[in-house]
Amino acid sequence: MSLKTSKLSVIPLGGTGEIGKNLLVFEYDESIVVIDGGVKFPGEELLGIDLVIPDISYLEKNRERIKGLFITHGHEDHIGGLPFILPKLNIPIYGTKLTIGLVMAKFQERAPYPESLIHIIEPGELVQAGAFQVEAFRVTHSIPDAVGYSLLTPVGRVVYTGDFKVDYTPIDGQNMDLGKLAAWGEEGILALICDSTNAERPGVTMSERVVGKTLCDWFERAEGKIILASFASNVHRIQQAINAAADIGRKVCVVGRSMESVVRTSIEMGYLRLPYPEILVESSDVENISPSGLLVLTTGSQGEPLAALTRMATGSHRQIKVEVGDMVIIAATPIPGNEKLVGKTINHLYQIGAEVVTKEMGQVHVSGHANQEELKLIIRLARPRYLIPHHGEIRHQVALRRIGHTLGYEDKDIAITQLGSRVELSADGMGFGLNAEAGSVNIDGLGIGDVGQIVLRDRQQLAQDGVVVLIAAISKGKPYTLLSGLDIISRGFTFMKEAGELVEGAQKVGIQTLTAQLERDQIEWMNLKSTLRDSLGNYFWEKTHRRPMILPVLLSI
Amino acid sequence: MSLKTSKLSVIPLGGTGEIGKNLLVFEYDESIVVIDGGVKFPGEELLGIDLVIPDISYLEKNRERIKGLFITHGHEDHIGGLPFILPKLNIPIYGTKLTIGLVMAKFQERAPYPESLIHIIEPGELVQAGAFQVEAFRVTHSIPDAVGYSLLTPVGRVVYTGDFKVDYTPIDGQNMDLGKLAAWGEEGILALICDSTNAERPGVTMSERVVGKTLCDWFERAEGKIILASFASNVHRIQQAINAAADIGRKVCVVGRSMESVVRTSIEMGYLRLPYPEILVESSDVENISPSGLLVLTTGSQGEPLAALTRMATGSHRQIKVEVGDMVIIAATPIPGNEKLVGKTINHLYQIGAEVVTKEMGQVHVSGHANQEELKLIIRLARPRYLIPHHGEIRHQVALRRIGHTLGYEDKDIAITQLGSRVELSADGMGFGLNAEAGSVNIDGLGIGDVGQIVLRDRQQLAQDGVVVLIAAISKGKPYTLLSGLDIISRGFTFMKEAGELVEGAQKVGIQTLTAQLERDQIEWMNLKSTLRDSLGNYFWEKTHRRPMILPVLLSI
Repeated sequence: MSLKTSKLSVIPLGGTGEIGKNLLVFEYDESIVVIDGGVKFPGEELLGIDLVIPDISYLEKNRERIKGLFITHGHEDHIGGLPFILPKLNIPIYGTKLTIGLVMAKFQERAPYPESLIHIIEPGELVQAGAFQVEAFRVTHSIPDAVGYSLLTPVGRVVYTGDFKVDYTPIDGQNMDLGKLAAWGEEGILALICDSTNAERPGVTMSERVVGKTLCDWFERAEGKIILASFASNVHRIQQAINAAADIGRKVCVVGRSMESVVRTSIEMGYLRLPYPEILVESSDVENISPSGLLVLTTGSQGEPLAALTRMATGSHRQIKVEVGDMVIIAATPIPGNEKLVGKTINHLYQIGAEVVTKEMGQVHVSGHANQEELKLIIRLARPRYLIPHHGEIRHQVALRRIGHTLGYEDKDIAITQLGSRVELSADGMGFGLNAEAGSVNIDGLGIGDVGQIVLRDRQQLAQDGVVVLIAAISKGKPYTLLSGLDIISRGFTFMKEAGELVEGAQKVGIQTLTAQLERDQIEWMNLKSTLRDSLGNYFWEKTHRRPMILPVLLSI
Repeated sequence: MSLKTSKLSVIPLGGTGEIGKNLLVFEYDESIVVIDGGVKFPGEELLGIDLVIPDISYLEKNRERIKGLFITHGHEDHIGGLPFILPKLNIPIYGTKLTIGLVMAKFQERAPYPESLIHIIEPGELVQAGAFQVEAFRVTHSIPDAVGYSLLTPVGRVVYTGDFKVDYTPIDGQNMDLGKLAAWGEEGILALICDSTNAERPGVTMSERVVGKTLCDWFERAEGKIILASFASNVHRIQQAINAAADIGRKVCVVGRSMESVVRTSIEMGYLRLPYPEILVESSDVENISPSGLLVLTTGSQGEPLAALTRMATGSHRQIKVEVGDMVIIAATPIPGNEKLVGKTINHLYQIGAEVVTKEMGQVHVSGHANQEELKLIIRLARPRYLIPHHGEIRHQVALRRIGHTLGYEDKDIAITQLGSRVELSADGMGFGLNAEAGSVNIDGLGIGDVGQIVLRDRQQLAQDGVVVLIAAISKGKPYTLLSGLDIISRGFTFMKEAGELVEGAQKVGIQTLTAQLERDQIEWMNLKSTLRDSLGNYFWEKTHRRPMILPVLLSI
């Protein structure tokens, strides 16, 4: 096969048409390179599901060709799927120091990933992965050590931004490498795969540094304890909060599993610097510190039912009690779907008599993604021939296409992808090839992928109107006779003890149906059950306008 | 009992500490007056529940003393509970013309409410209701004919704003009666019960007229069909959309049950005026009209699964097909909790290739509630001695208290209520008395109040991990023996056909448990069941980390 006739395929197996579970595949002849492997949090229709990861059947089938998996940064939607994905693939992984540290922390509770396959890389370092020369370049985002990737391929250079914003004043001084992007742009970039999360938002995203200023202002006004809830991974924000606490002589207590873990990892690896070591206090020591001398850093900014702030708000946290006069700062925006949970937490806190500071009252949170003007800057610098919006729902992808239009791109230069789309790139142009197998795998408890459409549909029916079990014993031989009455057990339907009339009516209908059927010469058990299900289903609907799941149990004895 | 020693009680049975199901009770000696009777939409934890209404036990017990129920306006959260509440009370009701029209429309599918008890009132009209002289005053809100109420009581005047914003340029020219409020303020208002919904929002709410302008702009840009989704009850917005359509020569098709009903009622009662009668077309005629000549007014602005826009977006609406180049305007803000549903609709529409216009892209929606500066205006005009924030969660009530502070009120002058709080007012001051019985009643299908905590907890467990039914037959007499194997049926747990090993293991554990128990001299059926439930529960948790509901069915034969 001649290289010249080969095409480069870009295949999003996650993170397109959705926010979450990012996984991007690059394929050229015998070489495959993967970027990221994230999770998505289940929508409310996915009852009981804990996590959703990308379907990687395509990668499993082509495992031999995968040259490596490169990671952009340490957020869950980019690394959370790796403990499920990597053991199936056993491939080399590459990432910057903090990112790899956070990935390894995820493997701690499981069998460790082989060390020989783990590679810490620096931005600017060249990694040859099959037909691809891969190079990380620094971007700014709401976690340190984030990068995008350039892939130099036989058909030209493609660049994936990863998640980014353009922060000119990052807390760690690690600027986004705009120069590199511009230099590649000079040389010629074939395609730019670009974060479209905030493509609907005009203007620019504020620098994380703004949050630091706002926090200082609020801290100065506080009289009781200060409790700050934020994403655990936003190390820069944690750094700024600790600095602000030091300035006014408050000690800092870190509470919540993921917050404790990230703070520990970040201190160990040098990404978080304490003004003086004794500023950190254990939560067991909190009772000895006056409220006006304390800052609590915690999880729960999304109102998650089990998170520390949520438990504090409901008075069920063991160590930290919220009291009248405490100030609670929620430094986050609710992820769509979490608004009500966050609202509940806020209301509980007010009920206690705490002061609650949210994003609406001052810039205690800024986004980690680029708004429209930043996106324009990046596209102007990179000047790619083709544009592929990624990391967003279709509304965001279309919004990035609209931005592309304003910069002179036409529809044919912009690829709106779906899960499994194969964007084919060559010197001749861009087109779509055959889709790759793609989708979602549900994780529920220890089960990976065993909860599918049928089980979920059953859970939905059970959730709506509960279940009714009908039990009867029937003689084995002819003449078929009912050996018992009809027992009825229900859960989640109605409070049966107070529904005597309903139950009696149901028994009557059920026994009539059964006897009529049993008088027949032949009985077919499946028919018998479905007839019983139908007649009781109609009866309950008529009486209650509900449709519980009906499970007939007929014992043939 | 001397009047002078009596106190006026203000008791919110709904609408405080929550948004929705408004119901406010005023009580003085032998006189009770009620304002509104709304519904609330169930939170997602209320699985399967259709609606939530206030618990009116307190009113049922004091039915003889109720002199009347006064209605502020025709929104569901103020009138939606009436079909459930009024038949239990049989009391006179009072409201303005459109409001009463909308209430009566709700009774149409049920037994009609006695005509002799229905009173249409005008703002400014005095109604003597026991010890209260009640007077409606006009307010501006996102539905025509909205009023607040003044109650002149033996201890002084109290005023309830109802839901309001200060719109200086209302579409129907019916201005808020600020003069009346100011005059009462001059005379002296004892307490103001004030809408706190938007008390967290700075500035002022824009006039509904702004939306009219924006709609005209968008309409002019549209090439294909225009589909406008809005709350059905926002008659002013519908009026403006119809006017804008007339201006550019488009016909109007009204789609969606509640939209059709409100438009019909409003036209009949003179609240909606058509530029010319033939502008309205039936949805069955839409196929004969060119897309560029059509405006579709529809429901579904909240992404409700069964609403017309949602069905159009998924291609399942019979008459209206969304096509490439159509413009869909969503003229609403998602109610907290609906963000994901609305997002889904938007994504479906983009998938089809429609242009989607949301509030973010221009003022296609404005709130119906007063922001901070409007609230200050009303409090300054009314100058009440006491302030009672109503119609809001505690965060909103506290925000209104904060506004009160800036106007010189102290904590003791402001009552933050909960459901059933009894605020006692007299010339001597304001305090809290004994709470009245209050709470929520869940409506599920035809059942009112029969789905309580136990049933809901069962539904939650069923929704999470499904149900497993265990069936075995056991001999009646001693020695107790197992007459069958152990049958296992499950729904919503895992896909059993592919879980052979799990099922076999469960049967083994179950039979072991049963045999061990049956060997005992005495068996207690309840114990037998709970032992079986525990051992299988542990088995499933160990194997799957899930906790399905386990229902043992043991037949004694």
